[in-house]
Formats: sequence, structure tokens, C-alpha cells
Amino acid sequence: MKINKMVGERFKDKPTDCVIDSHALMMRGGYMKDIAKGIYSQYPPLKRICKKIEEIIREEMDAIDGQEVLFPVVMSSGIWEESGRYESIGSEMLRFTDRNGAKMLLGMTHEEAAVHLVRDYAGSYQNYPFMIYQIQTKFRDEARPRAGLIRVREFTMKDAYSFHTSQEDLEKYYDVVYEAYNRIFARAGVPEVITVASDSGMMGGSIAHEYMLLTPVGEDSIAICDDDACDFRANMEAAESIIENTKNGADEELKEVHTPNIHTIEDICEFLHTPLEQSCKAVVYQKNKDDEYVVVFTRGDLDVNETKLVNLIGDDIHPADITPECGLSAGYIGPVGLKVAGNPTVIYDKSLQGTNNLSCGANKDEYHFTGLCMERDVPDAEYVDVAKIIEGGICPKCGKHTIKISRGIEVGNIFQLGTKYTKSMNMTYLDAEGKTQTPIMGCYGIGVGRLAASVCEAHHDEYGPIWPITIAPWQVHLCAIRSDDAETKAFADKLYDDMQKDHIEVIYDDRNVRPGVMFSDADLLGVPIRLVVSPRNLGESVVEVSTRDKKIQDKVPTGEILDYVKNLIKKLTDEING
Amino acid sequence: MKINKMVGERFKDKPTDCVIDSHALMMRGGYMKDIAKGIYSQYPPLKRICKKIEEIIREEMDAIDGQEVLFPVVMSSGIWEESGRYESIGSEMLRFTDRNGAKMLLGMTHEEAAVHLVRDYAGSYQNYPFMIYQIQTKFRDEARPRAGLIRVREFTMKDAYSFHTSQEDLEKYYDVVYEAYNRIFARAGVPEVITVASDSGMMGGSIAHEYMLLTPVGEDSIAICDDDACDFRANMEAAESIIENTKNGADEELKEVHTPNIHTIEDICEFLHTPLEQSCKAVVYQKNKDDEYVVVFTRGDLDVNETKLVNLIGDDIHPADITPECGLSAGYIGPVGLKVAGNPTVIYDKSLQGTNNLSCGANKDEYHFTGLCMERDVPDAEYVDVAKIIEGGICPKCGKHTIKISRGIEVGNIFQLGTKYTKSMNMTYLDAEGKTQTPIMGCYGIGVGRLAASVCEAHHDEYGPIWPITIAPWQVHLCAIRSDDAETKAFADKLYDDMQKDHIEVIYDDRNVRPGVMFSDADLLGVPIRLVVSPRNLGESVVEVSTRDKKIQDKVPTGEILDYVKNLIKKLTDEING
Repeated sequence: MKINKMVGERFKDKPTDCVIDSHALMMRGGYMKDIAKGIYSQYPPLKRICKKIEEIIREEMDAIDGQEVLFPVVMSSGIWEESGRYESIGSEMLRFTDRNGAKMLLGMTHEEAAVHLVRDYAGSYQNYPFMIYQIQTKFRDEARPRAGLIRVREFTMKDAYSFHTSQEDLEKYYDVVYEAYNRIFARAGVPEVITVASDSGMMGGSIAHEYMLLTPVGEDSIAICDDDACDFRANMEAAESIIENTKNGADEELKEVHTPNIHTIEDICEFLHTPLEQSCKAVVYQKNKDDEYVVVFTRGDLDVNETKLVNLIGDDIHPADITPECGLSAGYIGPVGLKVAGNPTVIYDKSLQGTNNLSCGANKDEYHFTGLCMERDVPDAEYVDVAKIIEGGICPKCGKHTIKISRGIEVGNIFQLGTKYTKSMNMTYLDAEGKTQTPIMGCYGIGVGRLAASVCEAHHDEYGPIWPITIAPWQVHLCAIRSDDAETKAFADKLYDDMQKDHIEVIYDDRNVRPGVMFSDADLLGVPIRLVVSPRNLGESVVEVSTRDKKIQDKVPTGEILDYVKNLIKKLTDEING
Repeated sequence: MKINKMVGERFKDKPTDCVIDSHALMMRGGYMKDIAKGIYSQYPPLKRICKKIEEIIREEMDAIDGQEVLFPVVMSSGIWEESGRYESIGSEMLRFTDRNGAKMLLGMTHEEAAVHLVRDYAGSYQNYPFMIYQIQTKFRDEARPRAGLIRVREFTMKDAYSFHTSQEDLEKYYDVVYEAYNRIFARAGVPEVITVASDSGMMGGSIAHEYMLLTPVGEDSIAICDDDACDFRANMEAAESIIENTKNGADEELKEVHTPNIHTIEDICEFLHTPLEQSCKAVVYQKNKDDEYVVVFTRGDLDVNETKLVNLIGDDIHPADITPECGLSAGYIGPVGLKVAGNPTVIYDKSLQGTNNLSCGANKDEYHFTGLCMERDVPDAEYVDVAKIIEGGICPKCGKHTIKISRGIEVGNIFQLGTKYTKSMNMTYLDAEGKTQTPIMGCYGIGVGRLAASVCEAHHDEYGPIWPITIAPWQVHLCAIRSDDAETKAFADKLYDDMQKDHIEVIYDDRNVRPGVMFSDADLLGVPIRLVVSPRNLGESVVEVSTRDKKIQDKVPTGEILDYVKNLIKKLTDEING
């Protein structure tokens, strides 16, 4: 393709709404254009990248016996009512009615459609196991789309669904997908993607993993054990928080202290000259369904892990609105003498179990307690794990104080779903003994556009993306400098033709523009191999070759350039595919 | 792939809601399953067929310098308000609001998105011409989805948009696309697809063609000149109706006749013993926007072409509700003494021009006129072409009475759009003189799933589809009869492996089922080459080879089968690709 005929604009200035590099570079490089918030059209470079990613995914899914199918974008509400998710999923699922008033929705995931497609087919144990997948457009009405392709509303996703007759068989296949995913990310040029244990959220099921690209701009927090001998890695949402609780000397007396103008746990500890660990903090929520209060007590230095809390109580929550009528004394809430209107839930984090001599609110305006001893003063408390794991905290696997917190972008996920969908949607099969059984499911997702943006985030410099050759929009970027020079133009034209004949994917810049413009455009397109033909180079009978990552910079005799390029493509590809 | 692991069911009985063969066979063959009215999920065979069709389309679009892009399925209303189509398109466009109340819609075509994508880029005449295309999901909220994949609500479509600086340049490129489309249909195995002149409908623009597969089950009526020397072919909607008007002797007197119980033009002609041609028929509509009446007079044997009528008056219409207040005398409407309430439009078809001695309604209950002479009795009438062309009618091109009316399925269309979108959406460029100009557009569509169904409609027998090898889900269907026989199973397994190693696409049936079941499943999958391995065949050291169209039935020595199959694949492919 010739660059002067390619649609899309490249420009120098970072758009003001771009907070991360991949977003800014992909806007500046003419990869995409937003048509609404979180909804993009793709220009040829991005479309080409996504097609290559899709082809890698397809090959790896086919290699593990996946069957490609296609589900609709628009579905009627019926099967979602069967699974219960028509009600349980919030406003991120876009619902509407068709011209006849029928309730419809835009698919943001396709478990229901997968069960619908196969439930009549898979009536015998002999049909199992099998896996079906699609690569299709999805829509999720995100409240806050951001960061370019990282969090959008419309996106292309590969979603796969496997069906099994036993948990063992699911686990065996789950491991197979686990490895296939590692191959996919390696082949896409991001072998640094790691797996972390994750919360299964609205999907249901138990065991789940996310594939994370670690980057400071990531939206997720990940707890990683820093001990080389330990492989603990988990999304902070799913990580157990382990605290070694110790007594702070002998139990003191529970004593009321007048603390006007002190409203936070930090303030009271500073006022008392005690460490935060020696306090008991209250965090108050309300349930979404009925606004009943949920009061959580943790050690003062810890935060509440809301995912674990929601899983525990089985209801969605929001930060509390503490009204005069609710009985709570804002800023002075504590476990002793707690009074809350309605039917409140009170939860104690494990970090408080067996601790003593803590400060806490006295449930009375302008008063705190000191000397709170949990066993003595809150004898009925039951302790559960609802705190966030912390940097330097205890690894739940090896038990050492080795936890590091990193940020990451989730580029894929795999879930063991169990029977949530098959049971609710009445999918059954007859086992070898002729008994009716419910199949067990797994599901496996990868966002294509988000993966493209993540690769850019992982591999770029200030001038543009550095695409791995396996997903780069083109393999070679050919620049003809001084294309007004007949000899230069003729040589470059022929080289372009020769490369195309050899099925090399090449973008050709034969515009009569300054080399600076040409090279900054080439940087923005991020093609791995650059060839420069110019009168000066031809005077030396060479073509300049460089790679986008600057690892190779070479001058190659004109007669050898075609073979050189072919070998270099093979070398760069082999480096990635191993 | 092994057939016993492939999702989807095959069954014998034609579903009751299937009115055309392709629908019934594709349901019976496990190609698709409906998830809502006119919305289907695709099983692997159909997904594979569609992927092959898409790849053929992609190659042909790339070959004419198309740039593949991707537009969103969900769009905000803004750009559609710019073009005016947010208002002008009816309820077939699905509109809704997102979680923030913003007006959104599902794309049923992407002219607006195309202009949005390139209008900032293409500011100089030097950027032109160019063509962009996508292959993407679309949604059209059809009132009456029917006939399986022929008329659905959600569908995959290739839509392309070209941009030009002159009408001449558009026409040149239009011809290029015209030929590319012919190649696409030929490569998909339906070279019999013909082009017909068409109405451009809601797309705007002037010249347009549709690609039609002629079949009695088609939804469109097509006028074709039967003279071999003439190439006139048009969608009936767009075909000019030419009538040789003749006088019926000397003008008679306009005379009122009492005609109680006669309400139709057929009845009055029978009553008077005159031919239908010697009458003037009234057809009454109302405009959708304001319910004003539109009265159309044609010769009694002709029907009104509503597409031409809508184009003429510039408003959408519906059949009239003739109320007591409107002034019309239902069943007795005629051009003399016509009275209609409001601001009516009265239209005379050319078939009436210069005619005489007609019967017609007298605008008075129970009375008709005879002796109507148009020039004398309706001196102010202006005559326009709003009648449907008829079987045996005059060819608008060669002028002979050679018109045949056929039915067809529209599998593609191409439009010269002009500046409808670029003008309304303020897309401009500077020409070589530095003057601001508006680019001229063309657009070009092919429905992928409808093409698949059309190929099935064109090529099937009572047992199943007969897929052309270029789009068949697999190239070879391998049947191992008596797979419980160890030697048979071993030979078939090895043949399966060998073919896969040679990149032959093969579906393998090694179920231990009766040959009848195996063959009827194979017929439903419609794979072009069938191989049968059985103890009896192996006893003769042969493999049975047949093609789905029964043109080849052969016994091939076991040692030669692999080469035989490779040659046969090449031969069948070459036959299609020419």
C-alpha cells in the first residue's frame, strides 16, 4: 500500500483527552477515530493489526479443538431471563425494545447464547467434551470509557465456551486453554503477560484467572509474591489478606476520650500518638437493593476489599449516605454500642481478631474510645477476610512478608463456570448409565482491540508504537527519499514491486516530502523493518535498513536487499514464535 | 474435523416455518439456529462458508485498491442527524438511548460513518480517489423477517464507499467495482447472477445496479428483455413502462351509466364487454407525513409502480383510507368531476395519454362513465410514468414487445450516490486551483449470509445443498463405513491424517452408524467430494469417490487416492475460477 493513498491522519500533538501513551500514539498515528464516547472506527493500520491478532487467536483455538461459531450481537431477553442475568446485570448491559415492543439487548458476553446453541445437540455424554468460540463485536455500556482501546463500549472479543461431564475434565481442559493463552500472548509479542488468580464476578463459578500485562497505567491492582520460589499472583480483588495479629501489651481499660474536630482514624491516631495498626476503623456501605446499612470494621491501616465484601454478603453495595435518622454518628463509629437503623449487617475483618488496646469511635459525637479489646468488648464478633492485601503483606501461599502490589491491564481471562448456566437453562445430557446430568462449563475471553493497545503500551517509545512483526500492520516500511529523483524513484518502485511479488507486506512512502516528515510518520506506524532508498544511498549502491526498535541498523548492497529483508522477516518472526 | 464432535443437529423433517428450500436445508443440516425472529447463531458449517465468502470478497476488494476499515455497530445519532437520515429512515432503523440518555442507533448501512471517518483526512484533491470497505455486523429491524438467511434482522455485510473528484471518475470506478462483483459471484459459484438497473431508494443518488440471482422464490421482480441482441434488465421498481397508446375509433360521447354493485374496473369492463385496456383505473394513496390524498389514474390493465410514484412525489405513501368526509366515492372514482378533500395530488400515467372511449368512475355512487376521451374530458392532465412494466410489454431499450418478468434474490448492489452525504455532512476538499469542492461518492454492498443462502437456493437437490468447492465448509467428506472393522478404521484414520497434512479440508465420519444415516448427513453438509472407505471397497483395494453433484462417481486404487483427491480439488476449483 502507498502511504499517500491511505486514509487517516497522522499528527504531532498529543490530544488533550489522552491519558495513556498507547491512546495518544494510536490517535496521532491514524489508527482510529471516535464516533461516540468509547466507540471507535478503525483505520487500515489498526484493522490490519486486529486481523493478525484474530488469526493468531483462531489458530490457537482451532489447535485445541475449538469450533468457530457465530452468535448474534442483538439478542432477545428470553434466554437472559432463563439465566437470571437479565435482572442481575446492571446498566452496563444495553437493553431496548424492537419495533414490535419485544425486549432485546446487546450482547456483552455470550454464555446464554452458547448454551442456547448447543443444548439440544449435546444430549449424550458421548458428545462431550467440546469447545465452541466466536470472534465478534460486543457492547458494554461502560459508565466511564477511558484510555483509548483499553476501556471502550464497543469491542471485538474472542469468547470461547467449553462443556464437560466432570469437574476433572473441565480442569484438564482449563489447563489446555491456559497454555494456549500463553502461546497467544507470546505470539502477539507480549510474552511478559502473566496470569493471576481472579474473582469470577458476575460470571459465576469458582476458579478463574486473568492474563495481565503489568504496567503502571493499568486499571487493575495485582498482588505478586516477590519470593522467586513462590508463584503467588492474584488480582487484588481476589487476594486473601493475612495479618499476624498481636496483642499490644496487657489489656487496658475501655476509656472514653473527648475528641472534638477529630473525624478520621488517621487523626485520632495522631492525636493519641499511636500507630494506625492500633486502631479499629469503620467503613459504611448500603446495599443497592434495599439501602440497608453494612458496617465493616478493619484494622486502621487496612482498606476494605469491596469485591470480597460483595461476594460475602451476596449483594451489590454503594458507599453509605449517613443520615441523621440512621443512628450512626459519622466520624465516631465503633464496635461498642453500635446502633444502626433497619436491619444492618456488621462485619469484622480478621485483622481485628484477638487484638487489644485499640482506639475506635465511641458511637457518640466528639468521643472516641481507647483500650478497645476485641475479645473482651465485642465478644460475639465473627471474623472474616474482607481487607485488601497490602504491599509488604503476607503471601497467602508461602507465608512470607513478600507481597508487592503492581498495576496491570487485563488482556484475557479464563473461568471455571460450573453449572450456573447449564442448570438455570435446563441443559442436560444422559450419562453412560442413562441418568440425566447437568454439564459443567468453562469460558475463556480475549479482547482483540485491548490486546492491540496493550502491546502498544508495552512496546513503544516517545515517537510511536514498536509493533512486533507478528501483528504489525506491515512487515516493511519503504521510504523513497527524494522521489523526485528519477533513479531513486525507479529503484524504489521496483523494490516495492519485488517485495509485493514475494508476498512481503509493505507500506511504501514515495511522497515528495522532507525526510523528517517521512520518518516521523514511519515511527507512528511502528512497522518493524524500515528501508531507506535515497540518491546518496544509491550512490553507495546500498539500501539503509533499520528496525523500529533500533537493534539493527545496516547498509545492505542493493543487489542483496530482497534476500536480506526476507531473512530478517524470518529472523524477527522466529524470535517471537520461538 | 470429526463429525461426531461437531456441534449442531441434522434432522430429516422440514421445519414447518420454512417456505424456501435453502432455509429448510440449512436448518435441517445444522447450519444455524434462530435466537429471535430473523436473528441466527451460526454453527461451524455456516461459519466456515461465510468465512470463505468473506475472504473472496476481501481479495477482490483489495485487488481494486480497497482499504479495509471497521465502523462501529452502535453509533450515536449525531452524524445521522447531519445527513438527515435519523429522521427520514423509518422504524427499520433500531434507535435507543444509552445509560446516559444519549440517542444511539444500530447501523444498517454506514455512509455517515464512512464520511465521518475520512472527512478530515481527504482535504486535498490529491487524496482522491480512494475506496474504503468493511465486513461487519449490521442490524435492520425488518417488519417481516423470512426465508431463513434471505431476509434477516442481523446480518454480516461487506459495505464499501468510494470518494471521487468528478462524476467521470466515479463512473470509471463504478465500472471497476461492477466487474469485481461479477468476479466475486463467479468465484462463489453463482456466475449466473445478473445485474439489473435498480432504484436507489433511501440511499440517494441516481445510477444503481442490483446483482440478482434469478429464482422463483426471489422477493424481487425483474424485467428482462428477451431479445438476445438487447441487454435490458431492470428491477421492476426501476423499469420504465412504455405503452403504445391508440385511439379506439372516433370519440364517443361521455355518458353516465347506472352501475349498481359494480366496484372494480374488472367488473365494469365485463359489464360493458370491453377489454381492460379500454378503461381508466383509479388507485388512491395517502402521504405518510400528512395523510393528504394521492389519486393515480392508469390504464385499467396496469398496476401502479409505487417506487416510481414515491420518487415522483418525494414522499412516502400508504394505501388510502377512504372516509365519508374525503369526498371520494369508493369504487366510482374517475378523472371527470373528481373532488377530494384537503390538498390532493392527482397523477395521470402515460398509458392514458391520447386515449379515448374509456370507461371510468363517475365520482358518484353507482355510476360510471363510458366514452371518456382524455384530451377532450381531462384537458389539463399531465402524463408521467408511474405504471408497472408488464410481461410482454415494450422494452425501454430496444422497443420490441419482448419483456419477461422474472423473480430474483438481490445478492449485492452498487450505487452512484453523488453528493448526498458529503454535502449534508460538510465534507470538502481543495481542488488543484485551491477552490473548495464537494466529493462525489459511490457505495457497494454484498450481504454475506444472504449470498450463502442464495448459493444454496441455486445449487441443491432434495437431499441437501450442493456447495461449490470455493465456499464449501470442507473440500472432502470422508465416510468410514463399518468403522468397527479394524482394517477399515485404520485405513480411514490414516487417510484422514494424510489429507490434513496436505492441508485438505476434510470432515471425517467414523461413527458406527448405518450407511444411510452417514450418506444423508453427508448430503445435508453438501461437501463437494465424498470418499467412502469400507471393508468391501478395501477388499477390492479401492476407495469410492463421488462428487455431491453426481457428475463423478469413481473407484480409485487405495495407493492413488491422495493424489486423485488433490487433482480433483484443483480441477473443481479451476472450473469455478476459470
